Amino acid sequence: MATTLDNGLLDDILHQVRPLIGRGKVADYIPALAEVSSNKLGIAICTVEGDCFSAGDAAERFSVQSVSKVLSLVVAMGLYDDDEIWQRVGKDPSGQPFNSLLQLELEQGKPRNPFINAGALVVCDMLQSRLSAPKQRMLEVVRRLAGVDDLVYDTRVARSEFEHAARNAAIAWLMKSFGNFNNDVMTVLQSYFHYCALKMSCEEMAKTFLFLACQGRAPHLDTPVITPLQTRQINALMATSGMYENSGEFAWRVGMPGKSGVGGGIVAIVPHEMSIAVWSPELDHAGNSLAGIAALEILAGRIGRSIF
Amino acid sequence: MATTLDNGLLDDILHQVRPLIGRGKVADYIPALAEVSSNKLGIAICTVEGDCFSAGDAAERFSVQSVSKVLSLVVAMGLYDDDEIWQRVGKDPSGQPFNSLLQLELEQGKPRNPFINAGALVVCDMLQSRLSAPKQRMLEVVRRLAGVDDLVYDTRVARSEFEHAARNAAIAWLMKSFGNFNNDVMTVLQSYFHYCALKMSCEEMAKTFLFLACQGRAPHLDTPVITPLQTRQINALMATSGMYENSGEFAWRVGMPGKSGVGGGIVAIVPHEMSIAVWSPELDHAGNSLAGIAALEILAGRIGRSIF
Amino acid sequence: MATTLDNGLLDDILHQVRPLIGRGKVADYIPALAEVSSNKLGIAICTVEGDCFSAGDAAERFSVQSVSKVLSLVVAMGLYDDDEIWQRVGKDPSGQPFNSLLQLELEQGKPRNPFINAGALVVCDMLQSRLSAPKQRMLEVVRRLAGVDDLVYDTRVARSEFEHAARNAAIAWLMKSFGNFNNDVMTVLQSYFHYCALKMSCEEMAKTFLFLACQGRAPHLDTPVITPLQTRQINALMATSGMYENSGEFAWRVGMPGKSGVGGGIVAIVPHEMSIAVWSPELDHAGNSLAGIAALEILAGRIGRSIF
Amino acid sequence: MATTLDNGLLDDILHQVRPLIGRGKVADYIPALAEVSSNKLGIAICTVEGDCFSAGDAAERFSVQSVSKVLSLVVAMGLYDDDEIWQRVGKDPSGQPFNSLLQLELEQGKPRNPFINAGALVVCDMLQSRLSAPKQRMLEVVRRLAGVDDLVYDTRVARSEFEHAARNAAIAWLMKSFGNFNNDVMTVLQSYFHYCALKMSCEEMAKTFLFLACQGRAPHLDTPVITPLQTRQINALMATSGMYENSGEFAWRVGMPGKSGVGGGIVAIVPHEMSIAVWSPELDHAGNSLAGIAALEILAGRIGRSIF
Repeated sequence: MATTLDNGLLDDILHQVRPLIGRGKVADYIPALAEVSSNKLGIAICTVEGDCFSAGDAAERFSVQSVSKVLSLVVAMGLYDDDEIWQRVGKDPSGQPFNSLLQLELEQGKPRNPFINAGALVVCDMLQSRLSAPKQRMLEVVRRLAGVDDLVYDTRVARSEFEHAARNAAIAWLMKSFGNFNNDVMTVLQSYFHYCALKMSCEEMAKTFLFLACQGRAPHLDTPVITPLQTRQINALMATSGMYENSGEFAWRVGMPGKSGVGGGIVAIVPHEMSIAVWSPELDHAGNSLAGIAALEILAGRIGRSIF
Repeated sequence: MATTLDNGLLDDILHQVRPLIGRGKVADYIPALAEVSSNKLGIAICTVEGDCFSAGDAAERFSVQSVSKVLSLVVAMGLYDDDEIWQRVGKDPSGQPFNSLLQLELEQGKPRNPFINAGALVVCDMLQSRLSAPKQRMLEVVRRLAGVDDLVYDTRVARSEFEHAARNAAIAWLMKSFGNFNNDVMTVLQSYFHYCALKMSCEEMAKTFLFLACQGRAPHLDTPVITPLQTRQINALMATSGMYENSGEFAWRVGMPGKSGVGGGIVAIVPHEMSIAVWSPELDHAGNSLAGIAALEILAGRIGRSIF
Repeated sequence: MATTLDNGLLDDILHQVRPLIGRGKVADYIPALAEVSSNKLGIAICTVEGDCFSAGDAAERFSVQSVSKVLSLVVAMGLYDDDEIWQRVGKDPSGQPFNSLLQLELEQGKPRNPFINAGALVVCDMLQSRLSAPKQRMLEVVRRLAGVDDLVYDTRVARSEFEHAARNAAIAWLMKSFGNFNNDVMTVLQSYFHYCALKMSCEEMAKTFLFLACQGRAPHLDTPVITPLQTRQINALMATSGMYENSGEFAWRVGMPGKSGVGGGIVAIVPHEMSIAVWSPELDHAGNSLAGIAALEILAGRIGRSIF
Repeated sequence: MATTLDNGLLDDILHQVRPLIGRGKVADYIPALAEVSSNKLGIAICTVEGDCFSAGDAAERFSVQSVSKVLSLVVAMGLYDDDEIWQRVGKDPSGQPFNSLLQLELEQGKPRNPFINAGALVVCDMLQSRLSAPKQRMLEVVRRLAGVDDLVYDTRVARSEFEHAARNAAIAWLMKSFGNFNNDVMTVLQSYFHYCALKMSCEEMAKTFLFLACQGRAPHLDTPVITPLQTRQINALMATSGMYENSGEFAWRVGMPGKSGVGGGIVAIVPHEMSIAVWSPELDHAGNSLAGIAALEILAGRIGRSIF
């Protein structure tokens, strides 16, 4: 029988995965990320009924990094027609590391999906074209979704990312050479790195993404964020491409759509039931939170939830 | 509101997708497959309650081709421990065409997943090592699953595949060069091509795979085929890697785990509810049944089912 | 018996290859290059004895483009020790198109050789680090080598290249991401595009590169340009990597070290004997002058010269 | 001034490179090759005037391995028209390891050149189609070229190669899948491995290849082996593709067309002057004889010979 969901269960799960700390590696490509304590461990859940549960460092904010790629896609889906988006970026798993140029060159500058860097940069390029203040707009969006007014970018992280922007600049310029990038590369990278440098706690992240468990309309919001169809589509993308090149392994072990970031956060969705956020900064070889995935796997088993 | 599932609904859906016939291309790499009439169109559904619905050419047998890759994996999971299987083949999407050697060479002969040719060949190699008569055993397995005694291989198709075996032979030899293939290449290819040449109707296919909708135990079978955990795992693999390099697009459009074959068949699963088989021989550019995917997409919308 | 070298022979050869005009394609990735008349055809030879021969449009200047890659390497060899250069760029054929990023990513940002774009950009980055005015310095070098005071850059071409710099910017940024690019990308690209936009006639080009036929010291120069060993090394690089991915075919057909540019120019060397420059703007599929290669092939046969 | 060529000079050179022994690695992919003593070191030179010089283990036979690829090409050029050969195999450097399938797949089964494994296998496939006893014929050819009646295959090596044939079988099957391989894979591999298992001493090898320094006609042979044009073409191929992916480096350091084998032998040509054979079993990372290349580099400097 599946266990009841409560704070005790979450405490229990964190206790069980804590021994994994020390087996992964905190992201260190920029100093600002490398400084984070590897001991941090948090989890939070919001249910469609409006309940919230949490444990560990669930109230402490961290850098969401690539989890923000879901948010920029959501904003783009509100500004563009389907065709406009999907002729510029695909919907399929890439089978390559998140920052690879190889496939992008072979496929003429069209990224495989919006959750690898190239795809997210195309999405940011689209936001740049239609929004007068894309960084400010994203803040407004997440503050509304999280129901928290003081969410901000960690500008030190954003600046540090920008100073190490070479790989992403190469990706953007390569897409530009194929005609799939319209705005100034450095301007778009500035937005992109700010989105990555957004800080949220597990509690705020679970609440922010609750709409993906509610057919696009979270209980605490008066209007839908996206349509039910778009919700299923984003969950599908997360399930097949949300965890870098280990999306298949994640589906196998956890059985939920999820999106990770190199800050050590992961958001996962049980459609029609709940959103989950976990945080543990040490990453596995694919760049996903090691203890975070383990916590989700145990949780899925304990509460008997899987989309499969 | 979601429509009720009945034969009329299925008739309706086939009527709606029939105009797509003519826009795809029947597989023609072997003469025996190229001969199939492109007009064929069938669908069948088995529910966990034991109901069956069908429409069109649902009773006519066709070559299951790569749909058999799920069956060989199921048999292997009964013969080997998890570790023995997954150290030889991965669980992640490949992002490459189904018969590519490129990634296989870069990744030292370990195929990305058991649903691309390389991965299925490793699985067949494992069956060869543990079974005295692997072709006969597979027939016994599918006859039991389908509850039909006269399921057979189309030996003409198997022979024809064998005569055009060059690409698959190259894949097997490349894996052998990396130490990931133990038996005689031609012997294993013989089994592999026979599995592909298995003939089933949509009705038989839906029934055969019903156990994937029933936590591993179909209502018409007295013992479980696999465990509930294994069931979720196979559904996860199908969801992320079941449709060649268009698995993401399929998840986006249909929202069910599925596995296709170049014979034009697709099996799809609604966990805890039903198994679905469609057949239409014309394929899209990725090798999936064009009208088959469209039928599943419409069905998913009409009955309001999606894992996302 | 080999024919005597004189202007009549060169006229003859141009006459023979002129029918090829119309079978290639003038470079059109920037408007300034696309405007050049495809009818132009010239050839010039300088011998180590100090004789000069020419025919056709040998006195008309054209954009040297990648032929300048030899000159920037020569300048770098005067500024840096061997080790400093060759730890940052290789000496082997790339087997890839001249502007590919694929191999560069797999090989951690170290270009295969200094005659593909990536390698030439690394060389330009090195010049930028050691020269206060790299563009001016290059002009001084070529003016001295050619013995002509009014050689200049076509700033319209340079500007046009810069406006279409995306692919080269991607290459430079990718190398920067691997730590193999030290200066500001756009600054180095400016120098690179100016070198490419240098204008020379066949007569000037043959004279400029005569030092490669004279063990590094041209008869019209009072001091050596490079050492005899460096001369052999550069000729070796030209022989194995000078003609993009068709360097083997060029060695097979012509049998001389050569370097081509998309402006339609080719410089070729008969060591210890002569330097040759040809110009015909239409290119073959690999980006080499179609009639230019044919003229060199005929010339090699007529005068009985080949390094093989 | 260049030193005079005599046995003392060769002794000197071997003395100078002997300290390199221990820095490379004897080929060990088959036991029969791994057994060879790493101390062996020999060199031999035949001049077009008919003189022969040698030093060290120049009279001891070793496995020629890929040096035989030049011989099979020579035989094929006698049996086929140019077009028939070069539509099936290219003339350009591959930029890839000698046994890679990656490029072969991207380029539709046409190998880059006849000196990588794929290209040599196509050449052997051509020999198989036109010769009733290809292995016997090759023996006749080399016995005539070397002027030695007892040259034989090391059948133990050939058998050992065949037992480790997986990678080459994969290459052959991949070409078959693209229609570029006509005969039975295993039969052709048998010939190929026998050619590789040919045993020759440095003295025999230098004499065998002397025709490449003599416009196709060696002084000890009463009829030409190939034409002067074909001689230049083969030398060109060796110069651009003879040393695996280090052909550029070899041209840079040594400045002669050369072909190496993993048995540690290298043959090099000074056109119009001499053929040289060196042997030292330890290989560098690209699979070329480490001390062998060093010996050739020193020799080239001492006698002042280079094609550049």
